[in-house]
Amino acid sequence: MANGDEFRVIAEHGCFGGVQGFYAHASSVCHAPMRFSVYRPPQASSGRVPVLYYLAGLTCTEETFMIKAGAQRVAAELGLMLVAPDTSPRVRLPGDDAHWDFGLGAGFYVDATFAPWSKHYHLYSWVTQELPALVAQRFPASDAQGIFGHSMGGHGALVCAMRNPERYRSVSAFAPIAAPTQCPWGQKAFGGYLGEDRAEWAQYDATELAARRGFGTTILVDQGTADEYLDVQLLPDRLVEACRASGTPLRLNMREGYGHGYWFVQSFVEDHLRHHAALLGR
Amino acid sequence: MANGDEFRVIAEHGCFGGVQGFYAHASSVCHAPMRFSVYRPPQASSGRVPVLYYLAGLTCTEETFMIKAGAQRVAAELGLMLVAPDTSPRVRLPGDDAHWDFGLGAGFYVDATFAPWSKHYHLYSWVTQELPALVAQRFPASDAQGIFGHSMGGHGALVCAMRNPERYRSVSAFAPIAAPTQCPWGQKAFGGYLGEDRAEWAQYDATELAARRGFGTTILVDQGTADEYLDVQLLPDRLVEACRASGTPLRLNMREGYGHGYWFVQSFVEDHLRHHAALLGR
Repeated sequence: MANGDEFRVIAEHGCFGGVQGFYAHASSVCHAPMRFSVYRPPQASSGRVPVLYYLAGLTCTEETFMIKAGAQRVAAELGLMLVAPDTSPRVRLPGDDAHWDFGLGAGFYVDATFAPWSKHYHLYSWVTQELPALVAQRFPASDAQGIFGHSMGGHGALVCAMRNPERYRSVSAFAPIAAPTQCPWGQKAFGGYLGEDRAEWAQYDATELAARRGFGTTILVDQGTADEYLDVQLLPDRLVEACRASGTPLRLNMREGYGHGYWFVQSFVEDHLRHHAALLGR
Repeated sequence: MANGDEFRVIAEHGCFGGVQGFYAHASSVCHAPMRFSVYRPPQASSGRVPVLYYLAGLTCTEETFMIKAGAQRVAAELGLMLVAPDTSPRVRLPGDDAHWDFGLGAGFYVDATFAPWSKHYHLYSWVTQELPALVAQRFPASDAQGIFGHSMGGHGALVCAMRNPERYRSVSAFAPIAAPTQCPWGQKAFGGYLGEDRAEWAQYDATELAARRGFGTTILVDQGTADEYLDVQLLPDRLVEACRASGTPLRLNMREGYGHGYWFVQSFVEDHLRHHAALLGR
């Protein structure tokens, strides 16, 4: 595909009275074909509905959330459109599959400035600007937008929301990488995509942004206590402290016995959709 | 693993207040390690609960239903244990991966009598006898059992139930292969596993069994109208006719615009769990 819109339907399926679709387009900001999925609830056949973006975690694709989270049932009830972008461009670059936590499937929702990633890995601009414009054009989306995500995507959702409060009315996260500049996953990714300029890193760190900017509606976070990544990679306590310092409302639910994956996410996805729906006017 | 029990926990995860587990054991009837998954609802921590078996379709494993169907939420509410067996042994035999609709992932829930399949491919006895005995021993299962499934597994569920009405109180299916002796998938599988003796085939054909034996409680079937396999492989009309002839109660819901996969299954799985729960005394 050349740059521009070049929207393509990969597949569409009936699901809970709505349509589960998988799509691709030629992204101008990523200079690459990019994939995403959309769940249109039944209400979207008769009018525009709010859009809730979901950013997935390491190794995931635009399919993961739609297959594993069980969110369509609730979205169909509430009249929310769900949009799940892929987690990286799929153009091949040297070394892009050498590590599962960097490169393919691991875009970290930043605009990379460091070669060779700087040509295609512009997930931040794609997710916050180009993709919403495309969704508004191609789907019956209203102006009301929320964003949430899981792990790397929880980090991404928090960053997108806090840097663009005029675009997102609601934000939540499952087991987010809450302070990426302070954990190995984040340090590796930011070093690779952004180089060693720590000022550049700070604009992609939810804890830094919470301390400096905060957010206007309650941030909802769920975190499993049996999550193997909790103590080294996720660090929700840092986010709690930053929100407290800036007076940002945060509800952190520690979930006893739950792990890191979609067995956990699906258990609480309904709570998150209801949180967003209330703030998006449904 | 040698024959016998040799039960092994592969993984367990918190999910909707219960436990989603993946297990293996050394099957005596399959002479092979066999895998299955169990969802234990929260109610199972304080007493025995009914068990609902789910048989998956072609190419699936013991993971498919648990990942894609969104059933745990409802099972947790109703207090049903869910058990999903793998769809074939995973020992390797010559030619077992030459076709996606025969061999690996395609056991068709028969006891094969034809070499080389006759040594390991004894899914029927495993699902109806050995696995329930193991589940009763290892998990807090009551005597109340139901069974359902999808596509190849819908065929399997109907056959297991109608041949063993003393074991199963309830049966349902999503897009079942309703008359396998009359469709290409079934003819290929039965010819390969059972040889050309059509009398042998008949005992694994839901339509034949419905005509000859019927079932004591209402058979619930959901079928998508946009299912690409409907007219050539699934043939629900044959089952309807057979049930009418024998006076077997059948509720067939044709679902407008739904396809064959789990986008369809998840949309109606709650109806099926409630159907079983009512008959299993929950």
